[in-house]
Amino acid sequence: MKHILLSIQYDGTNYLGWQRQPNALTIQGVVEEAIERITGTATTVAASGRTDSGVHALGQTASFFTESRLTPNIFQKALNALLPYDIRVISAELAAADFHCRFSATRKRYFYVIYNDSPVSPFVYRYVWHVKHALDVEAMQRASETLKGRHDFKSFCAADTDVQSSVREIFAIAIEPLPCISFLDTMITGKFIKLTIDADGFLRHMVRNITGTLVDVGRGKTDASAIQQILNAKDRKKAGVTAPGRGLFLDRVFY
Amino acid sequence: MKHILLSIQYDGTNYLGWQRQPNALTIQGVVEEAIERITGTATTVAASGRTDSGVHALGQTASFFTESRLTPNIFQKALNALLPYDIRVISAELAAADFHCRFSATRKRYFYVIYNDSPVSPFVYRYVWHVKHALDVEAMQRASETLKGRHDFKSFCAADTDVQSSVREIFAIAIEPLPCISFLDTMITGKFIKLTIDADGFLRHMVRNITGTLVDVGRGKTDASAIQQILNAKDRKKAGVTAPGRGLFLDRVFY
Repeated sequence: MKHILLSIQYDGTNYLGWQRQPNALTIQGVVEEAIERITGTATTVAASGRTDSGVHALGQTASFFTESRLTPNIFQKALNALLPYDIRVISAELAAADFHCRFSATRKRYFYVIYNDSPVSPFVYRYVWHVKHALDVEAMQRASETLKGRHDFKSFCAADTDVQSSVREIFAIAIEPLPCISFLDTMITGKFIKLTIDADGFLRHMVRNITGTLVDVGRGKTDASAIQQILNAKDRKKAGVTAPGRGLFLDRVFY
Repeated sequence: MKHILLSIQYDGTNYLGWQRQPNALTIQGVVEEAIERITGTATTVAASGRTDSGVHALGQTASFFTESRLTPNIFQKALNALLPYDIRVISAELAAADFHCRFSATRKRYFYVIYNDSPVSPFVYRYVWHVKHALDVEAMQRASETLKGRHDFKSFCAADTDVQSSVREIFAIAIEPLPCISFLDTMITGKFIKLTIDADGFLRHMVRNITGTLVDVGRGKTDASAIQQILNAKDRKKAGVTAPGRGLFLDRVFY
């Protein structure tokens, strides 16, 4: 029995998220179907975590056990031959039997891209949240300071989620204004804001709810100092809107 | 009567090129239809040139005459409200009555992106030609030197084209190997080759035929020294294949 670890990139635009669901196009579903076509055996793939509908990944990790004699390299090629172009296996390698993409992870990094200008270039519109109100990036940066460290992030977790603990540690959070974004080595100008969060784990909708709340701060709807009260409340209703999935990227999982 | 000049970006993936055609989705067709919805009058838009099926633009220019009292700024907003997200009007301004996007242009720049590695990231696959044979970039650069300057490019022009003269001047041609491409401020690694051509004008399929021929040189199928003979032959059959449209970008038109 082999344990094969994949690093996967996907453009989530056309998918209802990672997790397999009946009668819905999901990334897990498409990857598992491709593995079954290669091996002839129904196979479950375990990822570092689910990503929501429309969310993208530059470095999702997922692994599966197989009796197949194919090498990881051959698996990678065969999968890329079968998968649609918006899902690519970037690398494949053998993993220890006790390795687990989710439980062995020590740290994960997501980033979120806001476009705070007009109009949106056709080359980035799939990957940004277009916020039309002018945002005060410095206020957003001040507000984000409060989120650093170990906290109960219940106020930033989807209300219908049932988890044992909503305590997570944010190691780093950066909010960078970018005057342009490079596209194929050419500049696309406009006001972009990139929010990057490194944490030991993420609750459901956590990055999207933090982003939505920080955008409220940037718009002046919420004061930067209110973040501490929102954390203390442990109530999803106190935080801001859930930012749309299309601006979110699972950047990297660290082991 | 007003003359309005638009700068337009488009992702050409879903279009059969710029030029309006009956029963086909084209960029010109979609833009003209949007103008008609705004003004109530059928309007023809004149561009700097046609782009082929699947070809993209970062800076296509197009203009139209209208009796409408709307300002260019209002036209831009109204057009962007009506156009699909893969076509955006980046700017709109008044132009002199005798200005012509094509005939007033002094110079145009196209670039072409080759991906010479494996696998192709989902975030770039719409915008590159995936060439699997390893390419010798230095040989391609040597070959490209012969193309600089004023030449009859008939060998690089689509065979069915009827133009008065196939003489054009290439001011600059650059072939750059790139070890990665920045995507939303994050690196996508892999061997990219970017070919940029500045010229006083371009024949039909000229950049794509030059790219296809230079790829033959990079693969060792054609010797770099053969370019001069190909130019001299003035025969499309002597040059290489037409590179696919999806790797080509109309970058900028200069006036």
